[in-house]
Amino acid sequence: MALMNGEQYRESLKKMRPNMYKWGELIADVTTHPATRLHVQSVADSYDAAFDPERAPLFTTKSPLSGETAHRWNTLMNSMEAVLGNSKMKRAQYQRTGTCQGATCAGWTGINVLWAVTYEMDKELGTNYHERVKNYFKHVEDNALALAGAITDAKGNRALKPSEQPNKDSNLHVKEIRPDGIVIRGYKAQICGVAACHEIIAMAGSGYGEADKDFCLAVAVPRDVAGLTIVETRRPSDARDEEEGWDAPKAGNITQAFLFFDDVFVPNDRVFLCGEFKYTGKAIGYFTAIYRAAIGACVAGQGDIMCGAAINMARANGLSQKAFQDKLNQMAINNEITYSVGLGAMLAGKGHASGLWIPDMLLAHVNKTQVAKLPYETKVICQDISGGVAETGCFPSYQDCQSPLYGAEVLKALAAGADGETRARAARLVEWLTVGGGIPGCMHGGGSPDGARMVVRAMEPWEKFAKEAKRIAGITAELADPAPAKK
Amino acid sequence: MALMNGEQYRESLKKMRPNMYKWGELIADVTTHPATRLHVQSVADSYDAAFDPERAPLFTTKSPLSGETAHRWNTLMNSMEAVLGNSKMKRAQYQRTGTCQGATCAGWTGINVLWAVTYEMDKELGTNYHERVKNYFKHVEDNALALAGAITDAKGNRALKPSEQPNKDSNLHVKEIRPDGIVIRGYKAQICGVAACHEIIAMAGSGYGEADKDFCLAVAVPRDVAGLTIVETRRPSDARDEEEGWDAPKAGNITQAFLFFDDVFVPNDRVFLCGEFKYTGKAIGYFTAIYRAAIGACVAGQGDIMCGAAINMARANGLSQKAFQDKLNQMAINNEITYSVGLGAMLAGKGHASGLWIPDMLLAHVNKTQVAKLPYETKVICQDISGGVAETGCFPSYQDCQSPLYGAEVLKALAAGADGETRARAARLVEWLTVGGGIPGCMHGGGSPDGARMVVRAMEPWEKFAKEAKRIAGITAELADPAPAKK
Amino acid sequence: MALMNGEQYRESLKKMRPNMYKWGELIADVTTHPATRLHVQSVADSYDAAFDPERAPLFTTKSPLSGETAHRWNTLMNSMEAVLGNSKMKRAQYQRTGTCQGATCAGWTGINVLWAVTYEMDKELGTNYHERVKNYFKHVEDNALALAGAITDAKGNRALKPSEQPNKDSNLHVKEIRPDGIVIRGYKAQICGVAACHEIIAMAGSGYGEADKDFCLAVAVPRDVAGLTIVETRRPSDARDEEEGWDAPKAGNITQAFLFFDDVFVPNDRVFLCGEFKYTGKAIGYFTAIYRAAIGACVAGQGDIMCGAAINMARANGLSQKAFQDKLNQMAINNEITYSVGLGAMLAGKGHASGLWIPDMLLAHVNKTQVAKLPYETKVICQDISGGVAETGCFPSYQDCQSPLYGAEVLKALAAGADGETRARAARLVEWLTVGGGIPGCMHGGGSPDGARMVVRAMEPWEKFAKEAKRIAGITAELADPAPAKK
Amino acid sequence: MALMNGEQYRESLKKMRPNMYKWGELIADVTTHPATRLHVQSVADSYDAAFDPERAPLFTTKSPLSGETAHRWNTLMNSMEAVLGNSKMKRAQYQRTGTCQGATCAGWTGINVLWAVTYEMDKELGTNYHERVKNYFKHVEDNALALAGAITDAKGNRALKPSEQPNKDSNLHVKEIRPDGIVIRGYKAQICGVAACHEIIAMAGSGYGEADKDFCLAVAVPRDVAGLTIVETRRPSDARDEEEGWDAPKAGNITQAFLFFDDVFVPNDRVFLCGEFKYTGKAIGYFTAIYRAAIGACVAGQGDIMCGAAINMARANGLSQKAFQDKLNQMAINNEITYSVGLGAMLAGKGHASGLWIPDMLLAHVNKTQVAKLPYETKVICQDISGGVAETGCFPSYQDCQSPLYGAEVLKALAAGADGETRARAARLVEWLTVGGGIPGCMHGGGSPDGARMVVRAMEPWEKFAKEAKRIAGITAELADPAPAKK
Repeated sequence: MALMNGEQYRESLKKMRPNMYKWGELIADVTTHPATRLHVQSVADSYDAAFDPERAPLFTTKSPLSGETAHRWNTLMNSMEAVLGNSKMKRAQYQRTGTCQGATCAGWTGINVLWAVTYEMDKELGTNYHERVKNYFKHVEDNALALAGAITDAKGNRALKPSEQPNKDSNLHVKEIRPDGIVIRGYKAQICGVAACHEIIAMAGSGYGEADKDFCLAVAVPRDVAGLTIVETRRPSDARDEEEGWDAPKAGNITQAFLFFDDVFVPNDRVFLCGEFKYTGKAIGYFTAIYRAAIGACVAGQGDIMCGAAINMARANGLSQKAFQDKLNQMAINNEITYSVGLGAMLAGKGHASGLWIPDMLLAHVNKTQVAKLPYETKVICQDISGGVAETGCFPSYQDCQSPLYGAEVLKALAAGADGETRARAARLVEWLTVGGGIPGCMHGGGSPDGARMVVRAMEPWEKFAKEAKRIAGITAELADPAPAKK
Repeated sequence: MALMNGEQYRESLKKMRPNMYKWGELIADVTTHPATRLHVQSVADSYDAAFDPERAPLFTTKSPLSGETAHRWNTLMNSMEAVLGNSKMKRAQYQRTGTCQGATCAGWTGINVLWAVTYEMDKELGTNYHERVKNYFKHVEDNALALAGAITDAKGNRALKPSEQPNKDSNLHVKEIRPDGIVIRGYKAQICGVAACHEIIAMAGSGYGEADKDFCLAVAVPRDVAGLTIVETRRPSDARDEEEGWDAPKAGNITQAFLFFDDVFVPNDRVFLCGEFKYTGKAIGYFTAIYRAAIGACVAGQGDIMCGAAINMARANGLSQKAFQDKLNQMAINNEITYSVGLGAMLAGKGHASGLWIPDMLLAHVNKTQVAKLPYETKVICQDISGGVAETGCFPSYQDCQSPLYGAEVLKALAAGADGETRARAARLVEWLTVGGGIPGCMHGGGSPDGARMVVRAMEPWEKFAKEAKRIAGITAELADPAPAKK
Repeated sequence: MALMNGEQYRESLKKMRPNMYKWGELIADVTTHPATRLHVQSVADSYDAAFDPERAPLFTTKSPLSGETAHRWNTLMNSMEAVLGNSKMKRAQYQRTGTCQGATCAGWTGINVLWAVTYEMDKELGTNYHERVKNYFKHVEDNALALAGAITDAKGNRALKPSEQPNKDSNLHVKEIRPDGIVIRGYKAQICGVAACHEIIAMAGSGYGEADKDFCLAVAVPRDVAGLTIVETRRPSDARDEEEGWDAPKAGNITQAFLFFDDVFVPNDRVFLCGEFKYTGKAIGYFTAIYRAAIGACVAGQGDIMCGAAINMARANGLSQKAFQDKLNQMAINNEITYSVGLGAMLAGKGHASGLWIPDMLLAHVNKTQVAKLPYETKVICQDISGGVAETGCFPSYQDCQSPLYGAEVLKALAAGADGETRARAARLVEWLTVGGGIPGCMHGGGSPDGARMVVRAMEPWEKFAKEAKRIAGITAELADPAPAKK
Repeated sequence: MALMNGEQYRESLKKMRPNMYKWGELIADVTTHPATRLHVQSVADSYDAAFDPERAPLFTTKSPLSGETAHRWNTLMNSMEAVLGNSKMKRAQYQRTGTCQGATCAGWTGINVLWAVTYEMDKELGTNYHERVKNYFKHVEDNALALAGAITDAKGNRALKPSEQPNKDSNLHVKEIRPDGIVIRGYKAQICGVAACHEIIAMAGSGYGEADKDFCLAVAVPRDVAGLTIVETRRPSDARDEEEGWDAPKAGNITQAFLFFDDVFVPNDRVFLCGEFKYTGKAIGYFTAIYRAAIGACVAGQGDIMCGAAINMARANGLSQKAFQDKLNQMAINNEITYSVGLGAMLAGKGHASGLWIPDMLLAHVNKTQVAKLPYETKVICQDISGGVAETGCFPSYQDCQSPLYGAEVLKALAAGADGETRARAARLVEWLTVGGGIPGCMHGGGSPDGARMVVRAMEPWEKFAKEAKRIAGITAELADPAPAKK
């Protein structure tokens, strides 16, 4: 079964052990609980896409490992076209739901990255990790699994390394190495899409040195593995996402969770890195290269919906989109920049000896800096076009609209270029996209823009530029960098 | 009683007839209902300020009408210093609560504007409106009233004038003129601070011509006047503002309401404009000049808190503010720009024959364009500094933190440069300020930036600039503006 | 002779008929005249690159037509890699000279575009233009020619079409069709690199309809063809570029010219389009797609030099680049964005039936909007880092530095972290790059950003976005675009 | 003679000793030499304004010292209205000439600042400097003098203090103290308007401590004082400013000079500070407060001309300004922001015990950061509107337009919505304003934006903001700033 439809997918989730919580209570069934059902629904939609002739080319591809058609998120990204496919699928997913979809994203990237890193490890260390990854990848494809990716640790004090933290659990770590596997322990934070996944790829959250060896790991665990407790996080207006009525759209939503690994055992065939610290930097490097090349497509897809939402609001207000065309253009330009910078990173990338296509790291990180900037401008323009009713969703609630006493009057007061409910729905979408539950967290999601700037700093050939400029200026004297000025 | 303290103020509100609703239900007591109590609390704090030696100079002033010390929002703004006092008080109010305070804002501006407009009307028309305003002003000061200002109509279709709307109620209008007063009817929308006010100044929402004469009015009505129904609006994460616990700060919040005037009778001494259409443009002009000169101080005050919130988050993450000083500087510069452009408008303003000081209209509207821009940049920087935990408030809820099962672990996972609860509170404030209930709605609140740009367009002396440039370029030929190019 | 070195290239130029003017005088020898020699020098450097093992891979490629190694600008861009090669070569050229190089740019793009357009024409019209292009391409490669591209017409009144202009010469047009060729007449303006080219590809400057049929043409003419007069234009600080001394760098410069075609005869084998109006839109479309995908690399290359120039200035001032690292990062990010958006356009492009690879038009035009924006920000940062001495080059001239009376004192006054002359040269480079002769004219060069925005407007699927947003918002009512609001 | 007209002013300059140089040669008469005459002309225009009823209110004022009407730049700025008058006059001056006017600017500010600083010195030290300033101020007013202000030193290595420089002359210093006066020596750099001034106010370029005592001075010297050599600097396209013809506008220009003080004797009555190091910081503080509050008016005035120039270009191209109204609006908004932030600084300022009105330092420095940013955006928009012909002035020279051979054709090629010469002149103005001789150097002129940012950093009450935010967030724990993270 390389392909599964949405219904089969839901059924597969229902069979899992409940180990997720929100609002202090257990989530008995992720497919129906208000906090998780919309994310499951949007992932199910991606599964169904495999059987939709129009969408199948985006959502499936021929697996390089099996030669079979597989869900795209179950395959190795072994070419420029494959990483481009990642971008195109993500933009399409955002266009379907208006927001982010975790369970077909970071875990997939993670297992791809491990494909390459274990290849290097085996070559250099004589380990057999790559074989494990290959077998696991086959398992994923055969069972059409949705994978979450757990990279970010809770971290603790940002000025201290993992091994210096007062609470070792602040970062996920290897607690014990047994002959048949390892025991891991600690916190992962803000992990996207766990509610809708089957399994979790957990990896070290940064590149570490020998002192932090215990924190160097990469494993795959079932979401409902023994010892793992998952607590869902809040999000802006999340209470509203869980309400009935149309005060929030219902096409999908995000989930993000804190993961508490309480001495979780991982058998050896699911351990892909354990203590080999010098490969953690590579893993993060490859991960961010792929992830940040593609994330521009995510925010572009949401930006597309913001364009549409703004157009609808203009019309619902009684105005033509023409009055706002310059602003819409600017929104579209922002969208296409992040999309295209990502594509540029792919074209400037290169193939890894293991077969993985790795986008250019410098350009991928440049993209991250824009993903942390342009969507915010786009949101502001979206609010500018939409008017005060959408800016902060400043009108009575769905419940008020149902009031027998005054509900009809509220809807009449909301009517403009469209009936009151239509305009209200249009406004709630803008609110949700810009200051509500639809915000994907593209600033720090997948790493902070400051981190990306540090990569830019490290990768640009500054001395070469200085030298070329000296030659052009006709300078023959030395011009070495002096010590920083004393304060 | 020209001065009242917070406790007296609360008591005065309790005596009023309940006519406000939210979530489909009546709000029995605005001083205790979760949806309104925080706004009342922040207004009460401003009343108390009159008795705090440190804050009294900002929150009170000598009334030009009575010569007595009065709450600043009960006085005529008769000098550059008086409008400056408005700005300074608003920045201080934002610094107290992190957000907007409606009941000491637009109504006060409104009655000031009517002071000048009725002066002109009486001069030119022989009416006695100015006397009515004077008496009403005295009533306000004597009773230390909080005034909401209802300017924005529900409007209906934005492409049609009030008189062309299918539903005449889309805009508040005079339904009947009686010997002893008038009957008004229709909707006002997104009216700030009604929950915490005693009375409402309702004015025409735009400048109108004769065809829209019925919509030309200015009146004062008690908040609980017969025939008035008030429905509170939603806001981002408003459910959370009403919860217990620390998932939202509790220092204050905003309320905004839809007002349904169902044949409300207003006696003549509270009618300040009725049908004199040519004065509605002036009223809106003076109103926006004062309002938009001061609004830069509002967003600066919130920006100050964003600076503080970002510093706290940096520290709670374990990092020094020094690492982010350039970003903090940029936030501060944004704050000071909107503050200072407003002050510039005041300095470039002039005294009206009636005594009112009216800031320069061009510069006030320029300020509005920045108020609709710079605070958004400030928010993005605030999120950038604060990290992922604050960006979308992406961590478990207050309730989860109380869970006997896993609450302690959640708080341990949140600990970093500070204990878990401290860091959580710091993060929730950032979330609230940037994507939550603290958003003041400075884009469209008090009118849209596009409206402000139209004023800029109308007021800049383009032909003078073109002529000066011709002279400098040494051009002697005619250079008239051609007809727009055919498409 | 598919490859020619710089010396051979210069010799080939010297043999041509002098028909260029500047300052009212004839330029006898473009290789030595102060106004043109630097551009010739930079093109010669590109010719020499074919024989430099390190640079040859960028500056040469295997010609798809002959199978031989050829100068890259003599070859068909028949793959994604080939258009990428265009970008890489241009970035390298800018890094060599700090500025633009016309004679290996637009003409090359032009003949590539004609390759595709004539392929379509022959298919649909039964003409034999494609064969002519093929033969001409062979001639270009065999003789290693430098081609200028003349697209922009003098235009005349921007509100009128070519056929409506009072002076028909405002746009280059076909004056007469003879059995053996055509006679063309009119003005081309701002044509880059003519001074250093052998031949000129002249094409219609826009897409035209039947009324403007006479203006629909594409031809190749020798630069010194009978009837063609060329007048070089001024540029910022161009007098300084022509001076002795180091008040301007001497690594290269730009030339741009007005071309006056006074009944120039073009034999049939050099006529590639003549009156087939419906193909002019395609030609411009393909041209801008290739040109605007690559232009991001041009400005990135100049931006690289601005980074280097700023670093040198910091050091010459006595300061470490570390003090300015955030600003340098921002410069680099700007550079990489335009570079990468262009690459993205290439990856999203597709192959034309004729073999030409055509970048995605939407993304290429998005790139143009950024090329008209980001380099300006980069310049401002470059000036910010460099200090007042570089901002406007505000220090005495080279001649003053030679004064026996006070020259030594001037140089002593200029000394800081480096000797006076070194600092002066470093400052002059910044001045030249940001407000002097090095400005490449990336705002309107190759078409205006407003034109690019019109393409964005035309190509984004706005209705699709609106529809998706409606579905997500749960709106079922119609929401068609109303007529624009009456003013 | 408190007032002088332009003709009298020119005569007074002619009488001075020639001690200025450019291009290695002596400038015999500043009123006629091509390098200086335009600046003299624009200052003369300001003198004439005193006799023009329309402009006199801006260019003259009642002197607080004498009670007589005086040229504004000869008076004490003793009120908010007086500093506002400074701004208004500067905006008007820029509107007259399109650029900066040095000889009525920094020297005037300097003597005002010394008025306050010497007041404090005399109070605290028992010196009699204030009396000297008072007498000198009388001399200035009585003789209607134009004063340049020499603040910026050549500085030398930016990482070293003046006393640490290898060449002590890098900063102007006191070489010898004699009974009757002092001998000063060293370099001042980039001093504006010297060519058109009568006298020079020279002050220490920064605030210094005791180690740099020798560099602490403030004096007034005649421009042609014995021992002073002045070398004019280059500027973008300065050669063109000196040419005949219309390739540069002729309404005014800037001069900036290097000043070489070679043991210049200053008699005691012209010495206002000598070694009192602790007052240099105050002097610079007051200077920048006044200067940076007003500089926003300067760039606004130039921005006004850019608006006009862009409108003229649109028309000369055949297009209506309406097509560009949004862009023009943005230009105007930029202009009004810097103008209004400056006014805000004035309103937030306060009176000094000596009578001087000192704008708020924080807001004045905030203004500087915008003056270093917004005019650059304005220029880019100006070029965007104007088209390629203006962007880099890319068309043949004035001389080419005179060619009997082809000049008429060039002008015909330039014709569009206006005749060729008109369009050429319009384009040259845009070029001059944006990348030519009209650039005022507002980035580093009067100090760098980084310096302004340091003041912002120093003056914002960060800890107060953090504390207020803590209170609002309900945080009770300590949150002190940790040590910066180790790298």
